[in-house]
Amino acid sequence: MVRIMNGIKSLPLKNITVDDPFWGRVINLVREKVIPYQWEVLNDRIPDAAKSHCIKNFEIAAGRRNGEFYGMVFQDSDLYKWLEAAAYSLDTRPDPELEKLTDSAVELIGSAQQADGYINTYYTVKEPDGRWSNLQQGHELYCAGHLIEAAVAYYNATGKRDFLDIAIRFADYIDSVFRNTEGYPGHQEIELALAKLYRVTGEKRYLTLAGKFIRRRGSGEPHYFIKERQKPQYRTIWPQLEEFDAAYSQSHIPPLEQRHTTGHAVRAVYMYTAMADLALEDGNAQMRGVCEGLFDNITKKQMYITGAIGSTSIGEAFTTDYDLPSDLIYGETCASIGLMIFCQRMNALSGDARYADTIERALYNTVLAGMSLSGTEFFYVNPLEADPARLAHSPDLAHIKNPRQKWFDCSCCPTNIARTVMGLGEYIYRTAPDGLYVNLYCSGTAEDGLRSIAVKTGYPYADKAVITVSGGRYKLFLRNPENAPILSLSVGGLELDVQTQNGYVVLERDWNGNEIVLRFDMRPKIIYTSPKSQNNNGKAAVMRGPLVYCAEQADNGENLGAVILPSEAAFAETGAVDGLPPETVMLKSPAHRYTGQGDVLYTAAPPKLSDTEVKLVPYFLWANRNVGEMRVFLHHRI
Amino acid sequence: MVRIMNGIKSLPLKNITVDDPFWGRVINLVREKVIPYQWEVLNDRIPDAAKSHCIKNFEIAAGRRNGEFYGMVFQDSDLYKWLEAAAYSLDTRPDPELEKLTDSAVELIGSAQQADGYINTYYTVKEPDGRWSNLQQGHELYCAGHLIEAAVAYYNATGKRDFLDIAIRFADYIDSVFRNTEGYPGHQEIELALAKLYRVTGEKRYLTLAGKFIRRRGSGEPHYFIKERQKPQYRTIWPQLEEFDAAYSQSHIPPLEQRHTTGHAVRAVYMYTAMADLALEDGNAQMRGVCEGLFDNITKKQMYITGAIGSTSIGEAFTTDYDLPSDLIYGETCASIGLMIFCQRMNALSGDARYADTIERALYNTVLAGMSLSGTEFFYVNPLEADPARLAHSPDLAHIKNPRQKWFDCSCCPTNIARTVMGLGEYIYRTAPDGLYVNLYCSGTAEDGLRSIAVKTGYPYADKAVITVSGGRYKLFLRNPENAPILSLSVGGLELDVQTQNGYVVLERDWNGNEIVLRFDMRPKIIYTSPKSQNNNGKAAVMRGPLVYCAEQADNGENLGAVILPSEAAFAETGAVDGLPPETVMLKSPAHRYTGQGDVLYTAAPPKLSDTEVKLVPYFLWANRNVGEMRVFLHHRI
Repeated sequence: MVRIMNGIKSLPLKNITVDDPFWGRVINLVREKVIPYQWEVLNDRIPDAAKSHCIKNFEIAAGRRNGEFYGMVFQDSDLYKWLEAAAYSLDTRPDPELEKLTDSAVELIGSAQQADGYINTYYTVKEPDGRWSNLQQGHELYCAGHLIEAAVAYYNATGKRDFLDIAIRFADYIDSVFRNTEGYPGHQEIELALAKLYRVTGEKRYLTLAGKFIRRRGSGEPHYFIKERQKPQYRTIWPQLEEFDAAYSQSHIPPLEQRHTTGHAVRAVYMYTAMADLALEDGNAQMRGVCEGLFDNITKKQMYITGAIGSTSIGEAFTTDYDLPSDLIYGETCASIGLMIFCQRMNALSGDARYADTIERALYNTVLAGMSLSGTEFFYVNPLEADPARLAHSPDLAHIKNPRQKWFDCSCCPTNIARTVMGLGEYIYRTAPDGLYVNLYCSGTAEDGLRSIAVKTGYPYADKAVITVSGGRYKLFLRNPENAPILSLSVGGLELDVQTQNGYVVLERDWNGNEIVLRFDMRPKIIYTSPKSQNNNGKAAVMRGPLVYCAEQADNGENLGAVILPSEAAFAETGAVDGLPPETVMLKSPAHRYTGQGDVLYTAAPPKLSDTEVKLVPYFLWANRNVGEMRVFLHHRI
Repeated sequence: MVRIMNGIKSLPLKNITVDDPFWGRVINLVREKVIPYQWEVLNDRIPDAAKSHCIKNFEIAAGRRNGEFYGMVFQDSDLYKWLEAAAYSLDTRPDPELEKLTDSAVELIGSAQQADGYINTYYTVKEPDGRWSNLQQGHELYCAGHLIEAAVAYYNATGKRDFLDIAIRFADYIDSVFRNTEGYPGHQEIELALAKLYRVTGEKRYLTLAGKFIRRRGSGEPHYFIKERQKPQYRTIWPQLEEFDAAYSQSHIPPLEQRHTTGHAVRAVYMYTAMADLALEDGNAQMRGVCEGLFDNITKKQMYITGAIGSTSIGEAFTTDYDLPSDLIYGETCASIGLMIFCQRMNALSGDARYADTIERALYNTVLAGMSLSGTEFFYVNPLEADPARLAHSPDLAHIKNPRQKWFDCSCCPTNIARTVMGLGEYIYRTAPDGLYVNLYCSGTAEDGLRSIAVKTGYPYADKAVITVSGGRYKLFLRNPENAPILSLSVGGLELDVQTQNGYVVLERDWNGNEIVLRFDMRPKIIYTSPKSQNNNGKAAVMRGPLVYCAEQADNGENLGAVILPSEAAFAETGAVDGLPPETVMLKSPAHRYTGQGDVLYTAAPPKLSDTEVKLVPYFLWANRNVGEMRVFLHHRI
């Protein structure tokens, strides 16, 4: 059994340290605050937070407690994602007390496992005869996927096999059920998890089963999700899914025929991740081509500037090309995490930096915005504009919750953020036969046994990175960030031209502690949306490096929709105001504001323009001071 | 028994002729095409139109046919509103064939009347024991209101008492049930109808009952609509109304305490109409003050430039002040009709022209837009922008149907348009003790026995009106239109200064065929929304006189969101293109368009501006040529 197979070539987390002014705060927050907080929530010990009942569900399923199942049909996955986050934390910093807790959680999961390997507290407690009878809505395979992901992470972190063996028994049972029988999950997730299980065990049949789930999807008549409704045990779980829309679950046509991203956003990107995994492992060019096309469709036509995806709350879904409303947006935190994992596989598959550019966009903006500075409140939905008056009174915007919430009835996002932040190392570097890839700029070190690298940087605020490289002759691939292009580059004090291949500066040396100095373009920029999108004409956003900025009421007063960025915005950089992390770079610029017109609603008298100053903060920090208006796109006159 | 009581002082329709280049087309369309078409729909004889079953419901209730009730719980009201439209048509032009049809319909309604006077096909056929058990959802009093309105109109038109007697028996029965018992309608309508019945019969108790319904509303604990759920016969009709929101039906607080317009838009304005009726009849200053405040709240904060109201489809409702999204808008045709009737009463109550200005805005834009040039397709929802790609794929906009529909499952709007157009005379003139008011400019004549007037005009396209006045000494009140101000005025060739009182030019003469010539300001104007609304900053609409204009894809190609009106738009007026009525004045202006940026979604490169020409058509004519984009508000740089 090997730790990392060939397919996905991240470094083991153990081999990566992060010692970074920006990420240090975030990782410590998740380690010290978020993970303990979420354990308390899963145990229903946080007052005024939405009830979880997750641990109790397992205790009931394990026969340790009497009671009824409570929560979403996929409530189990909250514990699995929490365990995955905890595993990454243990992987990068041992913590015997946390490990005692996680061991006990693993043991609890084991106790809830049925004799044949099956684990799912909803079905075990509530519908013991209903197993696999409603794949469309039941989320059993989705939960199994998160169990497997957590077990693989836990094995990698601790070397303990218990959880992995639980996962293997479950996976083997699932394989026995679905190997030669029709059916595939209503919410994709297990496919990418089976690819992970294959990589850690070397057992090809897990990858084969993942491939079957993908290739069966959306094929055959009648549709499997309609056919299964004839089963005698079939019970409706989500009444709103009864009116069947196959595109919602990307099962309207087989995945290999899909060219246009559609349906539930998280389902879509989780599926694409598995498709990229399959292409990685078997080199299937057709599968890879489909993935490239879907990535292009998302990033060129259906992605917000913040890396958020999903333009509508109805079905938490994609809508259509260039439909990117700042107000109606869903932009689920989990969907941007799904976009990150899809891009991670695509980057591994292609060695192309544009996938890492999208990881950076989603991570530094939407994913980080999903968590408060306190670590105890979370966004599920990440709008690009918010006006408390509209949010309170427009039911079309009822999905947008400001401030962040302590927990949710459907609480997939908070634990997903935790596991993503604690697994950050997976996104920073990639080791490959042709060399070492630096995908994110983050202070710390990495080594793969042969090669080693140390990075010192204040990215994404500072414009400099110093990288010390050792380990003999190999190629170093330094991503030239789409949003913070490398302005200058020196190796051992020698200035070099910035030349890129697939978005990377490629340096091959006999590395022996050589020092590379990079300067990034961190000048604030006004960013325009393509006029093909009708949403942001006449408006612009401001970015500085990878960070999208926004205006908040706390700094600018209300009615942000009246603010106009001037044609030539001259941004001054200022330090953080109270309530924001001290390293924060804020921006300010002279601006204008539409005013006047008294109490008349419509008039032929043009509004007046008054002079004002607009102050901007990084979008991921919004809504950390008080409840107020926020806007990413402001009026702008070219 | 008198025809018109003191309160509401419209001229009888018989005394008004319309011989107008603009309205002639519309009235003839409704008379010749819409009324016969709708009769066919009510009889389910139009292929591919949504099933009505309205007549069959009555036949079943009357015992003339076997079968089940089909349709909305208020399906009966479609026949009543159709009868009201037909009555106005008969009032202004006898038509023995139509009258045979309407007589037969009246007879059918009479046959469906129960021994105690009750009429409602839903309850008679489907829930005979359920009468009055679910006032919140059951719409019995709503349907009764439309029956009464139709009966009053039919009596006025034909002099035949049968229908009026049916209505009186029903009203007397309702009075016996509710005079001394709690309860009030879930959908306001009967209150304003009872005021009409009072005016035509002189029976005060109808007005008293209307007052009771209004004054009981929203008072007492627990809420009546919660309390009635304890009745043994209570059955849920609208599952979506079970989660109770009292503000939806304006029953959260008593009407006299309401200062802010909220909830379902049609319910709101129908209630305000009845409140104004009560203030008219009893001179209650508090009630009048509340109505004035609610009118101000609507027109200064919650009304679209087209006179549309209701910013959200969820609950077909108002949202909050200054929330006027062009895309999410509901803008139900019925709601703008309700705004017209509310304003008609307020105009009678106050003699203030601003209420007639709002009638004009709603009528010439939203209400007329509700019907196709063919007279056989209708809008329920009236958006200010439409993009077929978004409409097809964004479920948030699923309520917007483009093209107009042949009929609807919930088809309140088409018959409402028909009765409004055929009753147009009610809005043109008002006779009062202090004189004769001209509220709309429309070619034709009017006389009230003493006074008479003849108008010749090409309004709203032409800028001139010639008015010939006779009948001795009295005051003539000529509205100075908010959106087409009077530029010059002469009486008998003598130029006068334009001076107004309450928005009217008041002329007192010994009228003896004197000729008044008015010139209106019909220059196209760029119109801005108050910056207090965040929706239209950086954008503007174009109006010419009372008509709001829009850009359509048919004239401008796609991607209308990229069009920019120049700072100083110089509009040329052009004749109609194919497919629009020949009298139509179109507008064109040089303009710009955002272009460029290739296939990149976000870029620091500003979009380019290309030169273009923008062509505009009156909003009420949109979607008569093909399915395409439409925008009222275009980008505009001041």
